[in-house]
Amino acid sequence: MTSHPTDRRMAALRARMKATGTELLALSPGPHMDWLLGFHPHPDERPCLLLITDAAAAWLMPALNAEGMREKTDLPFHPWSDADGPDAALAAALGAVGAADARHVALDEAMRADFALLLLDALPGARHSFTAPTLGALRMVKDDAEIAALRDSAALADAAMQALLAAARPGISEAALAEVARSHFIDAGAAPSFWIVGAGGNGAFPHHQAGQRLLERGDAVVVDIGAVKDGFPSDITRMFAVGTPPEGYAEVHAVAEAAVQAAMQAARPGVRARDVDAAARGVIADAGYGQYFVHRTGHGIGIEGHEPPWITSTSDTVLEEGMTFSIEPGIYLPGRFGIRLEEIVVLRADGPEVLSSLPRDLVVVDG
Amino acid sequence: MTSHPTDRRMAALRARMKATGTELLALSPGPHMDWLLGFHPHPDERPCLLLITDAAAAWLMPALNAEGMREKTDLPFHPWSDADGPDAALAAALGAVGAADARHVALDEAMRADFALLLLDALPGARHSFTAPTLGALRMVKDDAEIAALRDSAALADAAMQALLAAARPGISEAALAEVARSHFIDAGAAPSFWIVGAGGNGAFPHHQAGQRLLERGDAVVVDIGAVKDGFPSDITRMFAVGTPPEGYAEVHAVAEAAVQAAMQAARPGVRARDVDAAARGVIADAGYGQYFVHRTGHGIGIEGHEPPWITSTSDTVLEEGMTFSIEPGIYLPGRFGIRLEEIVVLRADGPEVLSSLPRDLVVVDG
Repeated sequence: MTSHPTDRRMAALRARMKATGTELLALSPGPHMDWLLGFHPHPDERPCLLLITDAAAAWLMPALNAEGMREKTDLPFHPWSDADGPDAALAAALGAVGAADARHVALDEAMRADFALLLLDALPGARHSFTAPTLGALRMVKDDAEIAALRDSAALADAAMQALLAAARPGISEAALAEVARSHFIDAGAAPSFWIVGAGGNGAFPHHQAGQRLLERGDAVVVDIGAVKDGFPSDITRMFAVGTPPEGYAEVHAVAEAAVQAAMQAARPGVRARDVDAAARGVIADAGYGQYFVHRTGHGIGIEGHEPPWITSTSDTVLEEGMTFSIEPGIYLPGRFGIRLEEIVVLRADGPEVLSSLPRDLVVVDG
Repeated sequence: MTSHPTDRRMAALRARMKATGTELLALSPGPHMDWLLGFHPHPDERPCLLLITDAAAAWLMPALNAEGMREKTDLPFHPWSDADGPDAALAAALGAVGAADARHVALDEAMRADFALLLLDALPGARHSFTAPTLGALRMVKDDAEIAALRDSAALADAAMQALLAAARPGISEAALAEVARSHFIDAGAAPSFWIVGAGGNGAFPHHQAGQRLLERGDAVVVDIGAVKDGFPSDITRMFAVGTPPEGYAEVHAVAEAAVQAAMQAARPGVRARDVDAAARGVIADAGYGQYFVHRTGHGIGIEGHEPPWITSTSDTVLEEGMTFSIEPGIYLPGRFGIRLEEIVVLRADGPEVLSSLPRDLVVVDG
């Protein structure tokens, strides 16, 4: 790994701020800061903000974190102690970066409400927006190092999925099966993020985790797993059946597969994200299952497992080469079964490159 | 465990809302919701709010979480799909709870900025505050079940601290020593939250974690560990020295101990939190170390490891019987060593009951 590309990213961010009329951008400890600086201070309830303008940047910093952070950043600190509270330090920091009279401040979307309102109350003349057109837009397009890290993480998820499928059999619980994938991730030095195993009717809840239900012959099972390896997440969904899948399963799986393929065909640089969603949604609606596709087609993936671009029916985000996102249409039939097929792709000039090497076919576990 | 006391807490919350003129209270998935309901929906970037008024309560709920959540709550849902976005559902939810024209909304402090501003932008005539006088005030006073859970968690932390101290010796790294405590927690089914081992000069950074520095003879070492057991955290800090402690150590330890005792003496029902902080701070300042006590005297502990009451120099919170909080004065001498002594206490009618049974004396590890 080379050193963190902070200078390059800060310059690109300021260019975006200028282009969007963003006078002040405020980040709190979290993924945006990780992307920009390669680290973030201890996040807690004490207001901590990185304030960035065209000319300067400075920290509003809780005093007890200041010493430890001096090793990591040479941007000026405006420390505040628990005894004094943050108001005076915030006013000083806003003055120092030339933002005391800012009329347009962009906030980190994930910032705590009390941090955001502390800042907005200190800038009564400012309108607020979020970082989507500036930092968010930059974060969506990955560099080679980020893509390589996502590729490594995806390969591990493939292996964890294969381990889980190898352990699937009648009588094992969803939770025990999830544990096979979790252990595989942990043994490889990755931190499991989620481990959905939804058997039969449980598969019809998109965010069902893994419970004590035992697998039975005739179950269709949704498996959606992911873990963070070296700072980058994975996310993959595949389907298996215990013996003969339920009545009507094959047709619905084919519809979901066709939706994946339609989204893949639609995803090209210059296309809006909503058009990718529409491609998948159209296939499912045409087959008569539109009401059962209750979520978006996909989400970006990078430092965070879920991040822009959102592949939704309302997203006007124009896709660019180097964006990484999921394509994961699903069909959820209450009381029967759910189906979701999910790929992580890197958008290339000629279309999506799929990071997984596992087929999306139904895996039949002999019951 | 009995069932979650949702009804009792909701009634108490509404009484506080009435008393404070809070027409609408909005919670996002997180600890406040856990306290009130015993669960929270999957937290992500999709706006999810529990809206509570005197007459009603309802959810703004991402559609894909709605099915799974119906098992957990019978409050009405206003679901929104990724296709439509949350605006119309939010307007409907505000109408349904009678808050479309609310003039005073209290927000969950930790809510994401984009959730908070979505709500505030939908209520242009409303002033905002946070939940401190309502839900926050109630959460601070623990019931017997909560105190019992904190006691169990504290006993485990005592055992983990003893295991760590037994492993301390010259030449072991901070990180390896931290791992002893981590393993102890994990083996007992608890999830380690933090594991500060700060040797020598590292101890002078209050939020130093545990690094590769090897313990040397003459080091004073700060150990601050905690873990979550059955949903409740622990948090304890003790000091040890490898052989003879550094020049001047004993005097500074005695000052920190006197500060703990002064805070314990000051903490009584009816006393303001600031007076407890002042008691500890006064002892340290009188001894000439005031500038080296760079943080508050303590923090509440409950569902969260850090929560109100904040024991700071500016807190007007009046302490009540049943509150649980830390008393943890520290003195940090840059380049030399740090000292912190931390107890978790339950405030009783006659003063604090300490949950740990470990002495606060310097432990000398033979070097």
